[in-house]
Amino acid sequence: MTVTSASAVVLCECFARDGLQHEPSFVSSEQKIALLNRFSALGFSRIEATSFTHPGNVPQFTDADEVLRGIQRTAETRYKATCVNLKSVQRALAAADAGYGPDEISVIMVASDGLLKKAFKRSPEEQYGVIGAMIDAAQSRFELIGTISSALGCPFDGKIDPTRVVEYARWLAGKGARYIAIGDTTGMGNPRSVAKLFQQLLDAMPDIHFIAHFHDTRGAGLANCLAAYQAGVRHFDCAFGGTGGNPAKISYAEGHAGNVCTEDLVTMFESMGIGTGLNLADLLDTARHCEEVLGRELDGRVTRSGLGLLLNRGIEHV
Amino acid sequence: MTVTSASAVVLCECFARDGLQHEPSFVSSEQKIALLNRFSALGFSRIEATSFTHPGNVPQFTDADEVLRGIQRTAETRYKATCVNLKSVQRALAAADAGYGPDEISVIMVASDGLLKKAFKRSPEEQYGVIGAMIDAAQSRFELIGTISSALGCPFDGKIDPTRVVEYARWLAGKGARYIAIGDTTGMGNPRSVAKLFQQLLDAMPDIHFIAHFHDTRGAGLANCLAAYQAGVRHFDCAFGGTGGNPAKISYAEGHAGNVCTEDLVTMFESMGIGTGLNLADLLDTARHCEEVLGRELDGRVTRSGLGLLLNRGIEHV
Repeated sequence: MTVTSASAVVLCECFARDGLQHEPSFVSSEQKIALLNRFSALGFSRIEATSFTHPGNVPQFTDADEVLRGIQRTAETRYKATCVNLKSVQRALAAADAGYGPDEISVIMVASDGLLKKAFKRSPEEQYGVIGAMIDAAQSRFELIGTISSALGCPFDGKIDPTRVVEYARWLAGKGARYIAIGDTTGMGNPRSVAKLFQQLLDAMPDIHFIAHFHDTRGAGLANCLAAYQAGVRHFDCAFGGTGGNPAKISYAEGHAGNVCTEDLVTMFESMGIGTGLNLADLLDTARHCEEVLGRELDGRVTRSGLGLLLNRGIEHV
Repeated sequence: MTVTSASAVVLCECFARDGLQHEPSFVSSEQKIALLNRFSALGFSRIEATSFTHPGNVPQFTDADEVLRGIQRTAETRYKATCVNLKSVQRALAAADAGYGPDEISVIMVASDGLLKKAFKRSPEEQYGVIGAMIDAAQSRFELIGTISSALGCPFDGKIDPTRVVEYARWLAGKGARYIAIGDTTGMGNPRSVAKLFQQLLDAMPDIHFIAHFHDTRGAGLANCLAAYQAGVRHFDCAFGGTGGNPAKISYAEGHAGNVCTEDLVTMFESMGIGTGLNLADLLDTARHCEEVLGRELDGRVTRSGLGLLLNRGIEHV
């Protein structure tokens, strides 16, 4: 395989939102802001910063406004905020009016009818209505990240028909999304189903930037990223230490369910000669800082083994 | 990709040897025998049973003879014993004479000149002499598993030239090996280097069964197995719970360095529709039993998340 600059990948660091979403202890706004500034200094061009969620539902993001207001913006980094309902979008707009709005907002559709019904008590028709109203309310003031969750399997419905995912993606594109994230919410994807789904999506919508948002529930997270890359995907979501996902107390989550681990994914891509644009010398310091913030060892393998091969051994592009 | 029976993979369960090699506490012979019988009942057609090593070097395998004598043999399973020197081969022959010999023996060559010199104090020429004498002594009474370690990177030499690995593989084939294991001893391989090396090996020796023996030092173990599979490899080594590898006290090992985790690898292959021939219903009980034996939680993700998708959801062959 020839590595060209077109092969380079864009990673979105999700530690501060998806990574922290279900952390039981509150990470202070100062810590969050310092982390986000650190991610941006590392060279991430996309960072998931926070979520406009009702504080009663997710206390971790009570400080969404404070965090967005506090971070140091650079021209090289776009910050994303998750929007869960119309009120979220209104908060994003208010933040933008006040000068500290997110660059991107994500709206989340659920590919699985069963999960949509159980978790959101909605039919697919109602989902189009709710998400459509959110997108319309945003008035194209943010880059829209359309997200399709449970796209590679659902603990209730089992297999998800790829054509259904394509249908949702087409609708999101029609509503103005240039970026569409495909979520393997409970880590049920495998390299073959990943390849098949993304091939179908890219064939149908070659101009859309599809984002692989995978959870490493069953250990195949990096293999699934490889399969997505081989299918043509160049955008990936990840979180330092493989943090995040749904805890076991949520009925449809299954055991370990963190995001694909940033430092391990970066190591895989960089050692393949696929540029991530990140400052490797500082990568593991940041990973260890994330461990300090959460007060425990996280799931990153490279955080233990080191980047020696990339930094010193000269074997990266083999 | 069409899945045919020719696509099915053969896994060799290495928990009892590579997995236990550096475990500080001695696992009793009864426990080892029970584990090996359990692996065989699961359907593994190849199992790494023990190592004929000097008890002073690796106390864990003091009971190599007792273990080989104690296990229940079935026609479906071949047991491998590691041989580290001429004395090992003589012990394997004595065991065979006494009726409890291994079906396979492995001899290990080191692809990296630097590691060969540091760890074994040998030149490549001396290595040919030593390994050749071992193979000759075995008189073709066992299936010979030629192993080439540090084939995908060396902490001293950095990159390993694939043509050097091909050279060693040709020599092993010339000495009668039909199976050649390619070891990524310190987990320095990446999907691109794996694909490149195995393509070269399979082009040069299409009749040899190459075995991918990968360590998950940097989290890319399953991605590397996927790359090897895509290159045409159908034999894989793995260990329950991702146990094994060299501990940090050995200078050339780097942090987490266990084998690729059996239960996670099986889940990936089976969910891709690639048959492993294993009894999935009992797979995780065995993985948990391995945790009981070692008295701690091991690295398998699926041991935590469950096989639900494979056993109940009907989404396996997507």
